[in-house]
Amino acid sequence: MNYKIRALREKLKSLNLEGMIVSNPVNIRYLTNIQSEGILLITRKENIFLTYTMYLEDVNRTLTIDDEIIVADTRDVSIEEAQNFFLFCENIGFEENYVTYEQYKKLKQKYRINNMVETEGIIEKQRMIKDEDEIEKTKKACEITDNCFKHLLEFIKEGMTEKEIALEIETYFKRNGADDVAFETIVASGENSSIPHWKPSDRKIKNADPILIDMGCKYKGYCSDMTRTIFMGCILEEIKPVYDLVLKTQKRVLEEMRSNYNIKTISRIVDDTFKLSNYFLIHSLGHGVGLDIHEMPFINQRNERFLKENMIVTNEPGIYLPGKYGIRIEDTVLVNKTDCTPLTKSEKGYVVI
Amino acid sequence: MNYKIRALREKLKSLNLEGMIVSNPVNIRYLTNIQSEGILLITRKENIFLTYTMYLEDVNRTLTIDDEIIVADTRDVSIEEAQNFFLFCENIGFEENYVTYEQYKKLKQKYRINNMVETEGIIEKQRMIKDEDEIEKTKKACEITDNCFKHLLEFIKEGMTEKEIALEIETYFKRNGADDVAFETIVASGENSSIPHWKPSDRKIKNADPILIDMGCKYKGYCSDMTRTIFMGCILEEIKPVYDLVLKTQKRVLEEMRSNYNIKTISRIVDDTFKLSNYFLIHSLGHGVGLDIHEMPFINQRNERFLKENMIVTNEPGIYLPGKYGIRIEDTVLVNKTDCTPLTKSEKGYVVI
Repeated sequence: MNYKIRALREKLKSLNLEGMIVSNPVNIRYLTNIQSEGILLITRKENIFLTYTMYLEDVNRTLTIDDEIIVADTRDVSIEEAQNFFLFCENIGFEENYVTYEQYKKLKQKYRINNMVETEGIIEKQRMIKDEDEIEKTKKACEITDNCFKHLLEFIKEGMTEKEIALEIETYFKRNGADDVAFETIVASGENSSIPHWKPSDRKIKNADPILIDMGCKYKGYCSDMTRTIFMGCILEEIKPVYDLVLKTQKRVLEEMRSNYNIKTISRIVDDTFKLSNYFLIHSLGHGVGLDIHEMPFINQRNERFLKENMIVTNEPGIYLPGKYGIRIEDTVLVNKTDCTPLTKSEKGYVVI
Repeated sequence: MNYKIRALREKLKSLNLEGMIVSNPVNIRYLTNIQSEGILLITRKENIFLTYTMYLEDVNRTLTIDDEIIVADTRDVSIEEAQNFFLFCENIGFEENYVTYEQYKKLKQKYRINNMVETEGIIEKQRMIKDEDEIEKTKKACEITDNCFKHLLEFIKEGMTEKEIALEIETYFKRNGADDVAFETIVASGENSSIPHWKPSDRKIKNADPILIDMGCKYKGYCSDMTRTIFMGCILEEIKPVYDLVLKTQKRVLEEMRSNYNIKTISRIVDDTFKLSNYFLIHSLGHGVGLDIHEMPFINQRNERFLKENMIVTNEPGIYLPGKYGIRIEDTVLVNKTDCTPLTKSEKGYVVI
């Protein structure tokens, strides 16, 4: 059995759970590499993947004998067989944050489960700590992202639209080894940069525009996430102190990030620094990055947890002045025992193109 | 108040519901045009959109006074205010197919709701029937898709990889007015075409390959969906009878599709025709298309509903011979009173490039 499923089984045992129903496709991919639709049943003795006829060939190509996963076509599983999977089991875990209310009711009934137990992100928590293979894949995604940024500095010209730039980014990613973008690319120019989640529009880049670019790609499933705010032609003097403050704060956070550092405290650094200058962080400072672009741990002032070695998280403070401009600087960062390593390494000082 | 919210309110009243919590972002977009994160509360007298600080500017740019939607920052809503939204209400609807088990519990508690009632896709059902504006947007998405197909016939050459072709499709869409792809493009060549949901790989197109291309784009949110199976250089003789059977069946379905036709019956036509030749349809015949690429009505033998005027659905029979090849032919189709109109119009006879 692969080590990820073994670790999950041990955790289940410690929680007094006799099995688990895994429905979230990202969790299924994490545990099995399977990318087809279906449901993974961790029963007392077996790991069973129930899927549909159309996916059987693909699933069987993906799995190896070592995985110890039985694959079945839902069509071939009778009502009685389904009810036998968790026979004599009392407590079976499920993903209360993924399973809909309707699915919950159906699962309970279909598998005749006495007590469906909320697992509180048991697999998401396991996913927080990356192994060597996962770190390598993330590094590769970050490397492609850095190279894309270099390419953009040559590519972007006055008069281009935000959409054209976003398309170039996506094309670059796919031509250079990435599976796909990790999320909808943000290219926000001029006053649009004051909206943190702006969608690329037909607005044309003008002289003196700030251009906020938030981009990331997936490499073998693993995501990168980086933001830089660059400038067309020149930087307006009024923007410089804001840029400097965001950059100083972002670097300050990097100095603090390390294993066993309290997430709440690290988020507070940013809030406190911003407030001194009468600014306010209107979104989270960051989030975990892995098979999902946004995953645990979420880096904000409400999170009481601690950073741990081999977590990969973002550090992305930003200041937004509605109707004027916004500045955000973000890196994907690997947490080490005593320090951290930014995996995205693009220039963070003033970049004027 | 816009007509979509008015229609929803009337439906709620007929179900004896005094309000509804709308969480599904696609349903929120349908009702309000808002594309930012948040939750829409349909209370007795008001429509309230609760969102986050970072989205306020964008939401306020989107809404007009006519929408009659109050926008609030969740941060500014006190516990008491939240509990007052549904004060003296007994039955409040929610989306049991979207809301997770965990969210269900939190909503019930936060808004102090006596009885959270499953709405069984009330808005998804409303979305099945498209209005003029929605049909126009879908037509435009289909037109871009047809033009892309024409472009591909010139573009695809022996030796290209599936990934290169998929990237060209996505680039074409974005350069030609689409918002985005409507789903991950499928380009499956040679034996890969036997896997209905193949992901484009580095396999190079060879002479005599079938190339199954399943693609679609979004135009102002509305999706198109089309599949063609074309051939590089020549068509192997053994494939022709299978292609002919799929095409004949696809056309037969188009002849039958019209308002008040039973969905189960139309799906059975395909199954019955295939079975006569010892083939088997391993996926659904089709699905509704709109703001979601897969939405109601789902066209399969388990659906007892009827097609209705101004539904937009796909018609996509396919035959798959594992390890050998697969043939699928799919159109996006508008259902009319007495017949139907395929909105994708690309060549369906043998196409050899």
